[in-house]
Amino acid sequence: MKVLVIGTGAIGGFYGSLLAKAGASVSVLARSDYGHVKANGIAITSETKLGRWHFTPAQVVRSASELTEKPDVILLCIKVVEGADRASLIRDALGPESAIVLLSNGVEIEDDIAAAFPEHELISGLAFICVTRTAPGEIWHQAYGRLALGNYPAGLSERTRDLAALFERAGIGCSATEAIVMARWEKCLWNAAFNPLSVLSGGLSTSDILATQEPLARAIMEEVSAIAAALGHDLPPDCIDKQIDGTHKMPPYKTSMLLDFEAQRPMETEAILGNAVRAGQRANLNIPHLETLYALMKLLELKREQDQQVPPA
Amino acid sequence: MKVLVIGTGAIGGFYGSLLAKAGASVSVLARSDYGHVKANGIAITSETKLGRWHFTPAQVVRSASELTEKPDVILLCIKVVEGADRASLIRDALGPESAIVLLSNGVEIEDDIAAAFPEHELISGLAFICVTRTAPGEIWHQAYGRLALGNYPAGLSERTRDLAALFERAGIGCSATEAIVMARWEKCLWNAAFNPLSVLSGGLSTSDILATQEPLARAIMEEVSAIAAALGHDLPPDCIDKQIDGTHKMPPYKTSMLLDFEAQRPMETEAILGNAVRAGQRANLNIPHLETLYALMKLLELKREQDQQVPPA
Repeated sequence: MKVLVIGTGAIGGFYGSLLAKAGASVSVLARSDYGHVKANGIAITSETKLGRWHFTPAQVVRSASELTEKPDVILLCIKVVEGADRASLIRDALGPESAIVLLSNGVEIEDDIAAAFPEHELISGLAFICVTRTAPGEIWHQAYGRLALGNYPAGLSERTRDLAALFERAGIGCSATEAIVMARWEKCLWNAAFNPLSVLSGGLSTSDILATQEPLARAIMEEVSAIAAALGHDLPPDCIDKQIDGTHKMPPYKTSMLLDFEAQRPMETEAILGNAVRAGQRANLNIPHLETLYALMKLLELKREQDQQVPPA
Repeated sequence: MKVLVIGTGAIGGFYGSLLAKAGASVSVLARSDYGHVKANGIAITSETKLGRWHFTPAQVVRSASELTEKPDVILLCIKVVEGADRASLIRDALGPESAIVLLSNGVEIEDDIAAAFPEHELISGLAFICVTRTAPGEIWHQAYGRLALGNYPAGLSERTRDLAALFERAGIGCSATEAIVMARWEKCLWNAAFNPLSVLSGGLSTSDILATQEPLARAIMEEVSAIAAALGHDLPPDCIDKQIDGTHKMPPYKTSMLLDFEAQRPMETEAILGNAVRAGQRANLNIPHLETLYALMKLLELKREQDQQVPPA
């Protein structure tokens, strides 16, 4: 299988290198890390049984027009944040048979890509992982790693099954699901609660949040679950209990949005909260907790924008 | 009239000095600023027509037991924050006829004082003012200054009218009201919205908050208004519009809670939000916006506590 990974951050570097390990021919489209990755490839250090390994991409390109071969699969591994033109990153890489895989957080993040490339198979994917890019071409895999893949808007193609099998062969769990949109909403339960709470609290870990404000986390999750149900994706009745219990068992964890905030990178506010709030409002649902969090995150982003415009004296 | 002002911060220094200007004999109980105020009194600079003046208290004491005379009126001008034992500050100063005036933000802040001193007249007061203590014994009065005074839980005594007249004589508007608790809830509309939004946004001014998230500010105010109504204090139907319009007309303003947050001082989270939320919960009201803000403020305070315990490396 010929794969192009777009993005050499934590997610692209980690999962791309696993596909190469499993035998695929994996090229990468790098942006800020291009020089380093071209010269050195990508080094992965995992705290799990995967250990350490090195990934030398088949080709390292700065733009898709440099590719010598069209990929079977394009793995888009960039965060869905404002200003990221995902379609233009994909366009030049597409061959007639190329499938597109979206590996990112958030809900309702597929529609614009589906509309831009209606002839292409679209696979939506979720990564359940703690992984960080510590430097250009250096990936630190702390824990977890499971993937969920499924066709958008529903179903499960041969190619999706093949891709899942490839990830499994590389040593990472990958479930192929007929209902990836439901899985996306289920993941959003956790993300919509813990990501903004970690940022708005000024940097608390998941365990501190849960130790003192579990009812708030649950109230947020209830609203996400109601939105999913209104869209026809009934989440399992015990899904909130499971997420809360699972988080109690995790070590204290800094959410990805908090890491982005602390590093002054764009946050996935729109992909996670904005899209959920808009979906809830379309369905005329009462979602005051989500609306409050979303408004507060927009205020926080406005403040950060002001601070970045005015250099400190 | 013999007055003891407890607290030589912005509120105590400003209003105490006005009573002295109007002819009262005003002593002060100072804590951290004792040495400076004892030696130098208090200097007030007002940007309004009040101009600049200097206030030499009749007596400056560190504790009420040092007072040579019992006051007719005790003006308690300290913020209602966790750890502040207001009753013990008052106790030794009380003569048999002393009235207690509480001049501070928040709702439901009278009950513990009323219970501790049931024989004493209790006057509740609100200050609508921008005033800052810039250094020990130095008060900067930026704008506004109106007071509202009334007996707790309701009514209007001769002494309250006299005190209001004294403030008026000193050049500051002071309305004496039979319904001070309602006035407190009306002020809480603004405080419960703009104080936490300014802090949780990381420091936005009122005008930035209002320019982008007016619906959230209104939703918070609606909940405060519903709580007040459930307690028998129906606020005027146009009160929210008036607060929003008034805030649009104000210059960009940093709330008092934001100033406290930035200076790492305790915030009036419990007096303003916690007491409002508890009152709403007692009345079985649906107040998700307030509950979310309150929970977020508690998380933020927890984070600050953690940061203060661990000195930076």
